[in-house]
Amino acid sequence: MLAKLAVLAYAEKYRVIGKSLPKVDGNAKIRGAARYVDDLELPNMLYGKILRSRYAHARIVRINTEKAWKVPGVRAVITGYDTKMNNMGILQDQPPLKTGKIRSVRDEVAAVAAETPEAAEEAVEAIEIEYEPLEGVFDPEEAMKPDAPLVHEEYGSNVVDLKMNFTSMDRDSFEQVFEKAAAVVSDRYQVHYMNASPLGTMGVVAHFNETGELVVYTNTQAPFLYRHELAKIMGFNPAKIRVIQPEIGGAFGRGMDVYPIDPITAALSIRTRRPVKLIFSREEELQYAPPRQPAVVYMRTAADRGGRLLAREARVVLDAGAYVSWGPFDGRVMMATVSGLYDVPHVLFDAKVVYTNNPYTGTQRGAGNPQITFAIEQQMDALAEELGMDPVELRILNANKPNSTTPQGMKITTCELRECLRKAAELIGWRGRGMAGPNRGIGFGAFFHVGGGARVYRSDGCGTILSIDDFGLVTVITGSTDLGTGSDTAIAQIVAEELGIDITNIRIVNDDASIRPWDVGTHASRATFVAGNSALLAARKAKEILAKAAAQELDTTVDKLVFEKGVVYDRDAPSKRIEFDRLVRRIHFRQGGSNVVVTAYYDPPTEMQDERWMGNLSAAYVFGAQAALVEVDPETKWVKVLKVVSVHDSGRIINPAAAEGQVHGGVVMGIGYTLYEELVLEQGRVLNASLMDYLLPTSAETPEIKAVFIETPDPAGPFGAKGIGETGCIPTAAAIANAIYDATGKRVKQLPVKPERLFSD
Amino acid sequence: MLAKLAVLAYAEKYRVIGKSLPKVDGNAKIRGAARYVDDLELPNMLYGKILRSRYAHARIVRINTEKAWKVPGVRAVITGYDTKMNNMGILQDQPPLKTGKIRSVRDEVAAVAAETPEAAEEAVEAIEIEYEPLEGVFDPEEAMKPDAPLVHEEYGSNVVDLKMNFTSMDRDSFEQVFEKAAAVVSDRYQVHYMNASPLGTMGVVAHFNETGELVVYTNTQAPFLYRHELAKIMGFNPAKIRVIQPEIGGAFGRGMDVYPIDPITAALSIRTRRPVKLIFSREEELQYAPPRQPAVVYMRTAADRGGRLLAREARVVLDAGAYVSWGPFDGRVMMATVSGLYDVPHVLFDAKVVYTNNPYTGTQRGAGNPQITFAIEQQMDALAEELGMDPVELRILNANKPNSTTPQGMKITTCELRECLRKAAELIGWRGRGMAGPNRGIGFGAFFHVGGGARVYRSDGCGTILSIDDFGLVTVITGSTDLGTGSDTAIAQIVAEELGIDITNIRIVNDDASIRPWDVGTHASRATFVAGNSALLAARKAKEILAKAAAQELDTTVDKLVFEKGVVYDRDAPSKRIEFDRLVRRIHFRQGGSNVVVTAYYDPPTEMQDERWMGNLSAAYVFGAQAALVEVDPETKWVKVLKVVSVHDSGRIINPAAAEGQVHGGVVMGIGYTLYEELVLEQGRVLNASLMDYLLPTSAETPEIKAVFIETPDPAGPFGAKGIGETGCIPTAAAIANAIYDATGKRVKQLPVKPERLFSD
Repeated sequence: MLAKLAVLAYAEKYRVIGKSLPKVDGNAKIRGAARYVDDLELPNMLYGKILRSRYAHARIVRINTEKAWKVPGVRAVITGYDTKMNNMGILQDQPPLKTGKIRSVRDEVAAVAAETPEAAEEAVEAIEIEYEPLEGVFDPEEAMKPDAPLVHEEYGSNVVDLKMNFTSMDRDSFEQVFEKAAAVVSDRYQVHYMNASPLGTMGVVAHFNETGELVVYTNTQAPFLYRHELAKIMGFNPAKIRVIQPEIGGAFGRGMDVYPIDPITAALSIRTRRPVKLIFSREEELQYAPPRQPAVVYMRTAADRGGRLLAREARVVLDAGAYVSWGPFDGRVMMATVSGLYDVPHVLFDAKVVYTNNPYTGTQRGAGNPQITFAIEQQMDALAEELGMDPVELRILNANKPNSTTPQGMKITTCELRECLRKAAELIGWRGRGMAGPNRGIGFGAFFHVGGGARVYRSDGCGTILSIDDFGLVTVITGSTDLGTGSDTAIAQIVAEELGIDITNIRIVNDDASIRPWDVGTHASRATFVAGNSALLAARKAKEILAKAAAQELDTTVDKLVFEKGVVYDRDAPSKRIEFDRLVRRIHFRQGGSNVVVTAYYDPPTEMQDERWMGNLSAAYVFGAQAALVEVDPETKWVKVLKVVSVHDSGRIINPAAAEGQVHGGVVMGIGYTLYEELVLEQGRVLNASLMDYLLPTSAETPEIKAVFIETPDPAGPFGAKGIGETGCIPTAAAIANAIYDATGKRVKQLPVKPERLFSD
Repeated sequence: MLAKLAVLAYAEKYRVIGKSLPKVDGNAKIRGAARYVDDLELPNMLYGKILRSRYAHARIVRINTEKAWKVPGVRAVITGYDTKMNNMGILQDQPPLKTGKIRSVRDEVAAVAAETPEAAEEAVEAIEIEYEPLEGVFDPEEAMKPDAPLVHEEYGSNVVDLKMNFTSMDRDSFEQVFEKAAAVVSDRYQVHYMNASPLGTMGVVAHFNETGELVVYTNTQAPFLYRHELAKIMGFNPAKIRVIQPEIGGAFGRGMDVYPIDPITAALSIRTRRPVKLIFSREEELQYAPPRQPAVVYMRTAADRGGRLLAREARVVLDAGAYVSWGPFDGRVMMATVSGLYDVPHVLFDAKVVYTNNPYTGTQRGAGNPQITFAIEQQMDALAEELGMDPVELRILNANKPNSTTPQGMKITTCELRECLRKAAELIGWRGRGMAGPNRGIGFGAFFHVGGGARVYRSDGCGTILSIDDFGLVTVITGSTDLGTGSDTAIAQIVAEELGIDITNIRIVNDDASIRPWDVGTHASRATFVAGNSALLAARKAKEILAKAAAQELDTTVDKLVFEKGVVYDRDAPSKRIEFDRLVRRIHFRQGGSNVVVTAYYDPPTEMQDERWMGNLSAAYVFGAQAALVEVDPETKWVKVLKVVSVHDSGRIINPAAAEGQVHGGVVMGIGYTLYEELVLEQGRVLNASLMDYLLPTSAETPEIKAVFIETPDPAGPFGAKGIGETGCIPTAAAIANAIYDATGKRVKQLPVKPERLFSD
């Protein structure tokens, strides 16, 4: 309580942090001034189009591009036979343009560049390809069988050599825990394909220019890794590749990797020596952008009579699709949540990644966490029932606590999970099972996620260049990418707070990766934490220079100076004051003067996990709980979500409105995942590739959402902030499923929860 | 001699400095990839056009824009009556759009923005203006008379309140020096209007965008001062103005100021909320771009019998035109050369600046120095004759020497003027007066110029941000502007040399002044010196970080490390080596690692001149001499320049080919100034506003030019370099005039030297 009061007092002294200021990029977006990749029109630009396979599994017998070349306006027709590029992907298992073997219906076979999109379309249709169809495999569990058709013959197996397993004790002892346990629950859960569906579809403009430089305009989330990967694929000197990110219309993980569209567009530009634009239509986006990783989860949990968790086992099968992108690596996040959401002493986790002829998967907001939390939090609900306990009480009993370490060695510093659970129960009006009213139910889902970076690359850092011009305008060139989440605004608020100036005096620059300093990319809810810390370091360096000069100017000492409202003054003698911009000019315009330009790099104090998957992956972890109130029509089994309460421990909230926006968006995405959104596949082909058939939740499906923040400043975060970007969508499916169970007694273990699954089996 | 040898040995150890490497911007320019302001096409862009006065001096009685508004495609018609802007110019004596009083034929009366250039043209012609003509004044000496028409009535005089006078001793003593002198020469010289004639004409694209930001694309030479000035004129917060410099097609001083075109284009964009492009045609450039400052120079010089200079007086009348831009400030440079080219103990200088109804003047390559050197160096020639001395010997006798101080307090460090004169005489084949052959003559001109910055603003500095990416590519974000002179290449060579890498691994970035650090602008031959020093400081900071890491990596000490050819190795154990890019990755990709991004600011150790015009304006001074061999047709008096030898002490030459290019261009510009180029004015109107009538020298008029460099490294310069950009054109007029005198016995004291002036008066 004393600590809370201290925090409150601290919060009050902030002028910018904790304020719901408008997004720094909001004005430009509202007024149509923001330019997205599809808004780019370069002089002399061509339009690209990709021809994909008609089969999920086949051999290419013959390609004839003659007719395509004859379409007026066509400037290039390329195939893998005439355009050599290196294999791409995390396991380098995918040629950008396929030759010989087709492994999925999205496989890129040829591409065209033409003067108009229509000509490109026509030319693509004129390419003649003869295939020899092969038997495919579309179920990952089937694909593991020894007689299954092989997706990549050369590997000899469909099981990908990606070991993601963790054991905290030996197998025999582990089994004994289960044998002796008072309660054991065990189930199979299954989650499905979901499209990220950002407003901005995947797209690239590539320009191999007259000086031999390849300039790529892309909506990637990780421009620096993108550049490196693209260079490897193209066999290019990375120094000759320049990556520019126009405004990004959302990504949700869709932009984590390099995809065939990237090298193909580059190859078309290299072939034609002209800029080439290749943008997915919504139909292409739904079919060919990487969907969220689907999974089959076998989970069992053991507890003692008092409800204390004793052990948990999860065996996961991950369908990689035809190639390995980031999707299967969701397994790592699943592992962390299995071991880290609750205080469970013994954990066994194993993920099998399997090739099939399905579309290959990417990572998506939450990165495995929505999938595994769907399993864990339903199992907690089942366990509580088995033990005759209140499900909230069971969670609180087993919740992780501050200053503890998970079995994988993750060091939890701040953790308000128990408070989040209490608050969620209170605000949803929880009075116990079956008390929500006729046909109504309440369910809970807790979550755990990284919130202080996530070291999955050799550096998890972010650089900042901060310069102050002679009029007090502060330009922050950050490595960080704002996907539309508001991270640029958070950075601006952090710098404004530190320098005691108005946020309108901060300009964030991060469009050109050949100018901005390095950053690993925006993922794992890291931008505000890592880039914010980097910006804060830079602001402090600048402040040091300013304070030294101000102390001299005002004839006082640095420790007495207050930076506030665009003025620097002496705390003890407030009439000793100088305006911020005037101070900058004093430093600059004098003999031996200098402009104020500083740089900083922040790499969080985290560890790469070792081969046993041990290591403190993040500098801070976030926790929280959601409660959902649903109503299920007894006749139609139609589920209506009436209310979601989402309570978050993300440390200090830099911008409450922006954080609330993240939570609202997350919850709606979670509702879509739970009830509506599903890429329906048949023989590896998406059947519902339009927004008429692929159901995104609209405002009509959006319930009252209450976002609540338990603000305990984290010592590692900028002004105490931890990540918030992904968490809103993580526990929603579990909370809704538990609420449906509360309302109907029917437990749905497969997503999405469609009415037909709520009728008796 | 020993010093020279040491220098030679030093030079040989350089791998990049002193090499004639291709310009870093050359490839893009040759291949048409470079984008100049006129290449910009922004979405939704309008075209602007300015209506100017038909009179040099008049009152506006009435303006009617009705018909202009009716021209299809017109989106804005503005005048000074409906568009309020603050006065502009160094003395703030000029409204961007004139109301009431017209003071020159270039006066801007109205402007139009339309969908096409043709519609803008048509609309401008449809504007009806009624004028009441006034008597004008077009001769500066006439304008000083009490009864002359007043250009600015409110000032009560045409003499501008700009005091530029310097006296090293009292008037009486000064007169006594002349009375007692063995030889005195006295003359009146007159120099004329010349157009800068860069390939790229003056132009602006302004875009007041949807977020209230005014983005200006301009070919200014001084983007930071430009932004500040434009903000003042527009009454804008400078923080909301962003100045972007596309590639610049030359400037030669033309881009030093803000001109009415700038705020007018901005106002058109603000009015229409659309991007507006306004580019001068060549005809407009010749009429309305600021010409080189013309001058009338009254000069006398006293010497003792042995030829030692005793005193020199110069009284200069400078025709400002209707408003004051940078032209009249050429007086300061004239003053410095009068006092600083030779070792002359007593100096009296006085410049009067006068308003007339002529076009207002700008500064141009050499900034007053070509004008005053035309007088000084002819007077030296006359003085030598008067004394019966060899003109080269007279110059050598009086030449300034290293480690001396001029009467204005300029501290000369390195100075090879005597060696330059000797070399010029030797290479032109000088054997004495009248020995050049029939109808031929040889003449000399020496020069003095700032070569280490020039503190005419409160900071003469330049900032650098230097970052090294993971592939060893070094991005140098410099404040400095490359006008096409090669300064970016020099910066790249300096950084490459210091870091021991190839110049192809350096990328110079300086297009966006909202990203790059501050710089006062490119003028006074300062870019390589000041920006080069700034880049060198940054490179050294980076090297320090790299060396520390390399020493650790290679288990050696920093002092033993050599950076060479992209490798860092131990001098004593060369097998201890690591590639430059690998080293960068080692620093970055480790726990607690960082990218290598550093900043530097260099402000030369110079002084602002005080009210007596005393002060060490520059950190280094450059000297040199030209010799011209001419042939004068005895019948037609047509002058043909056969050869020019140009010998320069610009310290260490960073890039000989680029320096030679500067000298060649300068000499040709000097030849044009001397013989061909003249804006012919009648009642303030340019009569020859086309390249058919305004004679630029072509290759047919270009003689053999030999550029020679006496390379004594200056201790203050980057690797010993001093400035070189302007000097090629400074002494050419004097050298040719002296050569003509040698050939014909006719001394021409007025430029240009046209055949008719060589016939008897």
